[in-house]
Amino acid sequence: MQILILLAHGSKRKESNLEIESLAKKIELFKLKEFEVVMPAFLEFEKPSITDAIDKCVRIGATKVTLLPYFLSAGVHITKDIPTEVEKSLQQNPNLKIKITDYFGSRDEIAEMLVKTALNSR
Amino acid sequence: MQILILLAHGSKRKESNLEIESLAKKIELFKLKEFEVVMPAFLEFEKPSITDAIDKCVRIGATKVTLLPYFLSAGVHITKDIPTEVEKSLQQNPNLKIKITDYFGSRDEIAEMLVKTALNSR
Repeated sequence: MQILILLAHGSKRKESNLEIESLAKKIELFKLKEFEVVMPAFLEFEKPSITDAIDKCVRIGATKVTLLPYFLSAGVHITKDIPTEVEKSLQQNPNLKIKITDYFGSRDEIAEMLVKTALNSR
Repeated sequence: MQILILLAHGSKRKESNLEIESLAKKIELFKLKEFEVVMPAFLEFEKPSITDAIDKCVRIGATKVTLLPYFLSAGVHITKDIPTEVEKSLQQNPNLKIKITDYFGSRDEIAEMLVKTALNSR
C-alpha cells in the first residue's frame, strides 16, 4: 500500500492546521490509485510529526510513503529539517520506501495563480 | 499608478528569498495593465518590510497598492500581523488605497496542483 503524506509547517492557530487536514482529506477523495490513504503531518505546532505519521503508515501496512512538502520556497525546512527527519525514519524502518517530492512552491503555475488571486479577490 | 506587493514570510536562507524576488519579477513581466510594478516584501528575515515597501510605493507615485499574501494557510500572520502592519501604513499615508487580497492558499486549484506535484516529481 502507498500512502501520501501532506507535510505542512504547522501553525499556532488551530484553524490553520485544520485547513491542512481538510486539504489532505480533499486529495484522498480524488481516490487516486497511487495513494490509497492521504494523511497530514506537521513540522511544528501540531501533530502528527513526520516521524509519527511515518510510523502510522508502517502500522497500517504501507510499503511506500510519498512525502509532499507543502511549502512555498526552499528554506531550511526543505533543505535540512525534512531530509533529516526522513533519514531518522528510514533508519527505524529500513524496509520502507520513502520518497520526498518536489516542494509545492516549485510548480511553474504559481505565478499565474498569484495573478488570478490578485485580480479576483473581493 | 497601481502597484502589486507580493508579500512572503521570508526565510533565513537567502536563496529562498531570492525565489520570491524572481517570482515578483516574473509576474511583473506579464505586464498586466492593473499592476505596472510588482515588488516583493517580507514579514521576517529579509527586507523590505511591508512598511518599507509601501513607503517606496508612495515615493514612486502609487495611488493604490494591492498586497497579496503569499501564504498557504490563514495562520496568525494572515489574521493579525499583516492587517496590523497595513493599518500602520494607512495612518502614515491616509490618501493611499491599500487592498489586501485573499491569501494564496485559499485558491481552489491547490488540491489538484498538489496531486500533480505528488505524481510528477522525480
